[in-house]
Amino acid sequence: MRSNNWDAVIIGGSDPHSSEYPAPRWKQVEWVSGFTGEAGDIVITLDHAGLWTDTRYFIQANRQLEGSGIVLHKTRVPDQILIPQWLSENAFPEKESVNIAIDGLCQRVSDIEELKSAFGEDTTVRIVSIPDMLDAIWQDRPAVPVTPIIELADEQVGESSDDKIDWLRSFIRKKGCNSMLVCALDEIAWLLNVRGSDIEYNPLVISYLIITEEEVRWYTRESYDDIYVAISENCGKMYVDPDSLNYHIYTMLPKESIVLGPSPVALRKAVKNEVEIESMRDAHLEDGLAMEKFLFWLETSLENGEQVDEWEASVKLSELRGEIQGYAGDSFETISAYGPGGALPHYITPKTNAPKLIRRGLYLCDSGGQYSFGTTDITRTIPLGPCTRMEMEDYTLVLKGHINLAMAVFPKGTAGCQIDAIARMPLWKTGRNFGHGTGHGVGFFLGVHEGPQDIRQNFNRQALLPGMIVSDEPGIYREGLHGVRHENLLLCKEAGSSEFGEWLDFETLTLCHFDTDAILKELLNNDEIKWLNDYNERVFRTLSPRLPAEIALWLRDKTEPI
Amino acid sequence: MRSNNWDAVIIGGSDPHSSEYPAPRWKQVEWVSGFTGEAGDIVITLDHAGLWTDTRYFIQANRQLEGSGIVLHKTRVPDQILIPQWLSENAFPEKESVNIAIDGLCQRVSDIEELKSAFGEDTTVRIVSIPDMLDAIWQDRPAVPVTPIIELADEQVGESSDDKIDWLRSFIRKKGCNSMLVCALDEIAWLLNVRGSDIEYNPLVISYLIITEEEVRWYTRESYDDIYVAISENCGKMYVDPDSLNYHIYTMLPKESIVLGPSPVALRKAVKNEVEIESMRDAHLEDGLAMEKFLFWLETSLENGEQVDEWEASVKLSELRGEIQGYAGDSFETISAYGPGGALPHYITPKTNAPKLIRRGLYLCDSGGQYSFGTTDITRTIPLGPCTRMEMEDYTLVLKGHINLAMAVFPKGTAGCQIDAIARMPLWKTGRNFGHGTGHGVGFFLGVHEGPQDIRQNFNRQALLPGMIVSDEPGIYREGLHGVRHENLLLCKEAGSSEFGEWLDFETLTLCHFDTDAILKELLNNDEIKWLNDYNERVFRTLSPRLPAEIALWLRDKTEPI
Repeated sequence: MRSNNWDAVIIGGSDPHSSEYPAPRWKQVEWVSGFTGEAGDIVITLDHAGLWTDTRYFIQANRQLEGSGIVLHKTRVPDQILIPQWLSENAFPEKESVNIAIDGLCQRVSDIEELKSAFGEDTTVRIVSIPDMLDAIWQDRPAVPVTPIIELADEQVGESSDDKIDWLRSFIRKKGCNSMLVCALDEIAWLLNVRGSDIEYNPLVISYLIITEEEVRWYTRESYDDIYVAISENCGKMYVDPDSLNYHIYTMLPKESIVLGPSPVALRKAVKNEVEIESMRDAHLEDGLAMEKFLFWLETSLENGEQVDEWEASVKLSELRGEIQGYAGDSFETISAYGPGGALPHYITPKTNAPKLIRRGLYLCDSGGQYSFGTTDITRTIPLGPCTRMEMEDYTLVLKGHINLAMAVFPKGTAGCQIDAIARMPLWKTGRNFGHGTGHGVGFFLGVHEGPQDIRQNFNRQALLPGMIVSDEPGIYREGLHGVRHENLLLCKEAGSSEFGEWLDFETLTLCHFDTDAILKELLNNDEIKWLNDYNERVFRTLSPRLPAEIALWLRDKTEPI
Repeated sequence: MRSNNWDAVIIGGSDPHSSEYPAPRWKQVEWVSGFTGEAGDIVITLDHAGLWTDTRYFIQANRQLEGSGIVLHKTRVPDQILIPQWLSENAFPEKESVNIAIDGLCQRVSDIEELKSAFGEDTTVRIVSIPDMLDAIWQDRPAVPVTPIIELADEQVGESSDDKIDWLRSFIRKKGCNSMLVCALDEIAWLLNVRGSDIEYNPLVISYLIITEEEVRWYTRESYDDIYVAISENCGKMYVDPDSLNYHIYTMLPKESIVLGPSPVALRKAVKNEVEIESMRDAHLEDGLAMEKFLFWLETSLENGEQVDEWEASVKLSELRGEIQGYAGDSFETISAYGPGGALPHYITPKTNAPKLIRRGLYLCDSGGQYSFGTTDITRTIPLGPCTRMEMEDYTLVLKGHINLAMAVFPKGTAGCQIDAIARMPLWKTGRNFGHGTGHGVGFFLGVHEGPQDIRQNFNRQALLPGMIVSDEPGIYREGLHGVRHENLLLCKEAGSSEFGEWLDFETLTLCHFDTDAILKELLNNDEIKWLNDYNERVFRTLSPRLPAEIALWLRDKTEPI
C-alpha cells in the first residue's frame, strides 16, 4: 500500500455479479480475514483493518476475527457508520486527496458512487481499480467455476425464454435504448430458463448477458471473458442496472452510450406465474414429507438412546431431501444448532466434533432444498425434551409473531416494511426482539434470497404483489443459551375487494407441523390457537397419505390440537 | 392568461409561510373554487381547471365543485397524478416551452423545484411569479391579520427563548452559516415563546424571523414587509429551509450566500420538555372535564326530549371549554356530525339548519382546545341510541385498532410508518380501512398538526422519540350511513431496556371515557378488554373528584367494566 501510495484498500465481499453468495474464487474476505459470514467487507488503511458486517454475524465475527487485528464494525444497528462515512469522516476527515484501491470486479458501481459522494468537495478521491487484485498474492486462488448447464422446459417454468426476452426488449425500447447488459446471475438464469451449479446452493451459471434488438449474447464458460470486448463493441444505447454492475465493467463502458437504471427483471421474476406457484406448492409438499421423516427419525433416534450430533442430523436431512426426484442440492447450508448454537442466527454446524443433541431444551434447524420444480426454506425449533420457562416463552412468543404475520390481510400497495411490526409486536411487548429481517423473497429454483420485496424494518417501498413469495421467520436469540426461529414460506395472494379497497393475504406454502410441546397456551389468543391447530391439521391431512404408516401415526399425535 | 402568454396558472392553497391553515387573505383556493377543504391546489390551463386534494376531502370537493367546471384530481391514492406530473405529462407532454404563472408568495421553493424537474430536458419551463397575483381581481381581499401578541413566561414553556436561540445559533455555526431565515410560523412562535391569534385555531403571529450571530430580527406587524429589504442586506451565509420558504422570497435571496437545508426547529419543538409534558397532562385533564360535561349534557338533553342539532352541540362544547382558565379558543373547527355527516372525515357542521341528533345510531365529535398550557385533540363517536350491527362492528373494530396502537411497545428508532399497521390490522382483516393517517404530531399551545413525526402509511423515516405527542385516530367511513373515529393523544415515553434493546411506549394523555354501549365484546380479546376497562376506570378516578356529583355518578355508570 505504501509503495503504491494507497491510503485504503477495500476488499469487497461479492463477486463480479454482485451475488449474495460468491463462488470460492471470490471469497476474498474469508481469505483475508478468516471470517466466513455471508455478508462482509474489509477496509484496510495504514493503521486500521476493519470488517463491516451486520447483526446476523456479530457473534461469529467476534470469534473468527479474534487475534487477527481486524476490528468489527457493526452494520444494521442504529448508530452504524458505514464504510463511506467511516473513510470520509473517521479515517480521512481532513485529507485533501485520498487514494482508494479496490478490485473493481468485486465492487458495485453504486457502492463506489456512494463512497465518492461521502467525501466533501474539499477532498479529491481517486479510485484505483485493479481487477483480480488478490491474484498477485493469493497463490492457489480457485478458478471461475464451470458446471453443467441445465435447460428448463417452458412447461416447467410457465413462460418461454423468448417471451421473457420480448418483454425485456419492449422495456429497453421504452427506455429509449437499443440493448441491455444483464449482470445479475439470477436474472440471467430466469431470462434464459437455464440453471447451473456454479455457486454452492445457488443454481446459477456465472455469465454476462447482452440483449440487443436482434441478438441474445450470452457470455459464459469459454466466452466469459469476451464480455470485455463485447461491451466496447457498438450496442447502441445500452441499459444497465448499476446495482449489479461491477465497477470494472462500468469504467470500460462508453459513458455517452449507457443509461443506468434499475433492472425490471428482479420484480417480474419475483412475481411467480401460475406454473411456478403450483410447482412451488409441490416442492413444499415433497419438502414437508422429508422434514416430517427427519423429525420422526430425530425423535425416535433420541428416544432409543442413539447418539446424534448436529452434523449427523444435518446430513440425515440432506439425505432425505436427496431422495426427492428433481432434488438439485440444498438451498443453503443447513443450520443445525442445538442449544447455544441456535443463538447464532447463521450458525455454521461443525463437520467434526459437532455438539450432541440432548433430550432437553431446543434444537433449531434451518434448511431448504433446491428442486427442479422449486426452492424451499424452512426453520423448525424442536423441543427435544423438557424446556425451561424462558425457552417456552421464547418459543411461544416467536410463534405468536409468526402466526400474526401469516394471518395478516392488507390493502394492495402495502410494502413489507409496513407490516413487519405485525410479527414483532408480540416480542416487543415483552422486551424481546431479533436483529434480522422478518422475511425475504425466495426464487423459483433460484436464490433462496431474492428481491426486490422483503419484510423488515427498512423503508423498502416495494409493494408486496400477488405471486410473490416471502419467508416469515421471526426469532429470539439468547447468547450462550438458545435460539428460537419459526419459518414458513408465504405466498402473497389476492383476497378479494370491498368498498374500502382491494385486499391481499398470505397462503402458507410450507408444510411441516409446529411442535406443540413447548407452547405456553396462555400466551396465545383464540385466533392464534385456531390458526395453529388448523395449520397442523392441514399438514397432517396433506402429508399423511404419502407417509409410511408409522410416521403418519406419529404425525397424528404431534398434530393434536392444543 | 392568453394576453400574458401563460400556459398554466397555479393557485396554491398555502400562505407565504407554508402554513397548513392560511388566514382568510390566503384562502385563494376557496375564493377561486368555493372548495373549503384544508388542503388543495388549483391548476388552470386554457382548456382545463382542476383541484388537487386528498382522500379526506373527496366527498366534500365533489359537492363543492359541482357546476364550477373544476375537475377533482385525487391525491394520496395509489394511482395519483400530482400537479408536476400532470402538467408535464398530461397537459404539455410535447411542448417546447411552458409558461406557468404562480403567486410566488404562496408556493414553496421545494414545490416549484419539483415542478420544474418534472419536465424533461426538451421542455423549457418559465415560472412567472407574481406576488399577490389575485389582488388585481379579488376586490375585497382581506388584509394581513394583526392580533395581540402573547408572551409566554419561561416557566410556562420550560425553556427561555434565549436558550432556544443559543441552541439554534450553534446549529447555524455547525452548518458553516452566519444567520438563519425562519419562515414557518410555528417555529417562530416556539423560538420566541410568543403566541398570537392571527390564524383561526392556530395561536400564531404572522411574521418572518432572521437570527444572526448578534441579533434576533423579527419582522411582524408594521415591519412585516421589511423582510424584503432585510434579506437583501448582508447576513453572511444564511441558512433557510426550502420546505417553508416561499418562492418569491427565494428569488430575492442572493443565491451565492444561502444554504438550503431542513430546519432543526421542527424536530426539537416536537420533543416536549418536562414542563410542556406536565402542562399537557393538565390540559387533558381540564379538557376531559369539559368533554364529560358535554357528553352528560348531550345524553340528558336527548333523554329529556330536547332538540339538539349538530351546530348547537358544537357550540355547547366550545362554551364548556371556554370556562377553562387559559382557554384561547378551539384548536380547530369542531366536527360535530350525526350519522351520514360522520362519513366525511372533515365534515363542516352547518351553522344553520344543521342535522338534528336523533336517539339512534352514531354521533361523531372531533374537537380540541387551545389553552395557554397546552393543546388538545379528541374524537369520540357516541351511540345516541340503538345501533345497527354494522355500526357496532365498525365502532368496535376501530376501537380495537385504537387500543392496539395505544398498547404498542417498540424499540428506539422505530418510525411511525412502521407501526401504523398495528392500528389498521383489525380493520384490514375484515376488509375495512380508512383513507387518512392514523396519527399526527400535536404542538404545545401551537398547531394541532405538527411534524416531523406521524403515524401513517408513508415512508417518513422520522423515529418516534420520547417526548413526542401523536394522535391515535383510526376510523371507518361509510358514505351515506355513518362514520366512526376514536381519537386520543399519546405521549411517546421511555419504557426501559432489556438485553434486546431500549424500548418506548405510549402514555394516553386524553381523559374521556369510551362509550361501551356500541361495543361487540366478542370482537375484542382479553388484553383489549382489559385496556378498555383500565382506561375507563382511570378516566373515572381522575375526573370524578372535579365533576359535579350528578355527572360523577353518571360517569361511574358509563365506565362500568365490560
